[in-house]
Amino acid sequence: MHIAFDADDTLWHNEPIFELTQERVAELLADWVPAEKLGEKLTSTERRNLRLFGYGAKGFTLALMETALEVTGGEVPGRVLQQILDLGKAMIEHPVQLLPGVVEILDQLAAEHPLLLITKGELFHQESKIARSGLDDRFTGIEIVSEKDEETYRKVLDRYSIAAERFVMIGNSVKSDILPVLGIGGNAIHIPYESNWELDKVEHRGAEAEGFFEAASVHEVPRVLQQIASLGWGSD
Amino acid sequence: MHIAFDADDTLWHNEPIFELTQERVAELLADWVPAEKLGEKLTSTERRNLRLFGYGAKGFTLALMETALEVTGGEVPGRVLQQILDLGKAMIEHPVQLLPGVVEILDQLAAEHPLLLITKGELFHQESKIARSGLDDRFTGIEIVSEKDEETYRKVLDRYSIAAERFVMIGNSVKSDILPVLGIGGNAIHIPYESNWELDKVEHRGAEAEGFFEAASVHEVPRVLQQIASLGWGSD
Repeated sequence: MHIAFDADDTLWHNEPIFELTQERVAELLADWVPAEKLGEKLTSTERRNLRLFGYGAKGFTLALMETALEVTGGEVPGRVLQQILDLGKAMIEHPVQLLPGVVEILDQLAAEHPLLLITKGELFHQESKIARSGLDDRFTGIEIVSEKDEETYRKVLDRYSIAAERFVMIGNSVKSDILPVLGIGGNAIHIPYESNWELDKVEHRGAEAEGFFEAASVHEVPRVLQQIASLGWGSD
Repeated sequence: MHIAFDADDTLWHNEPIFELTQERVAELLADWVPAEKLGEKLTSTERRNLRLFGYGAKGFTLALMETALEVTGGEVPGRVLQQILDLGKAMIEHPVQLLPGVVEILDQLAAEHPLLLITKGELFHQESKIARSGLDDRFTGIEIVSEKDEETYRKVLDRYSIAAERFVMIGNSVKSDILPVLGIGGNAIHIPYESNWELDKVEHRGAEAEGFFEAASVHEVPRVLQQIASLGWGSD
């Protein structure tokens, strides 16, 4: 069985760093716009820019500055824009905080299976986080991709000569880590995270109906993998 | 022989798009700072941000905005910052303009050798440019990397099981495409481009002393490759 992990909000905390940054920006712009309205405007800026910027902290920082200009009618002081820029830089430098149990479970699984890391976002920032996580030597391959759709997973599996029916993806995003993997005939374990980015939400019918597995935390992953194996899935 | 091409300013024009954007921003800020001074400030902002942002158009746009705030003492009007942001977006959407002869020479070489594309920058933007170039099916592998140093080239060659002494890299940057490849025992052909980004300049002793080859344009590449082969280099 070939096992792959997502990184952001699966191995380490990510979304709260974006949310805290947004809260700080909302405080800076409180004279012009209430926090909730800012959030709506920001999401629509991000959605509009996605086809140009893709995912990640640089595009988020640009979206914060663009939204600040928009909600203030261009009246936002330069000092505030500089603070937003500095908050964006601080996000990129933010320490990598692993989720509980990640090191032990990866060590345990790496002893039995080849592990891949498949993460979406900005190449430079993701590489930096992977290096700072100290986890890279647990993985036989690391793939940083711009989008997690069926085509991407097909390419990654081709690259490592892995059959989809021997592949299990583990991650927090039903949209990015689960449904496209099921779509190409793989299997998947969903570990919900405490919060979820607006643009990463997706309608789905639940684990049973869609045919994926749930784990409450990474600690449950070995047990769920055994369950998957006991169903005859992924065996030679 | 395994042949790899750089992309920006080797297969298609890139640096002029950055330079034209900078000229437009210099016009917008002409009341505050002369163009030359802006250029110096911008380069120092880019240099300072490189360890956070890496290379590419999003980091460049952030650097333009930061520099505009700096040179105006925070007094730059919101309207001008929005124009800078729009210029950054226009860069990302800019049509991909191939250099003369690229299609014919790639077709000719691809018939005889496996070709790789190795390019540095932002994943999302580089993938978009590669797709829009229409060149992707000439390459047996495409690698988008965050930095082009010896370690990166070693990893790419490992990934494709290519021996360094059978590898020739072709590109416009002595710093990124030539010296690190020579450093790991490969060979390289330099095709100078009409302009060169300040942070991509490097001191070197010239082609003969360093041990690389020069081609005036991509048209000369097949001839230079024959010359390299005739020296017994890269043969089985």
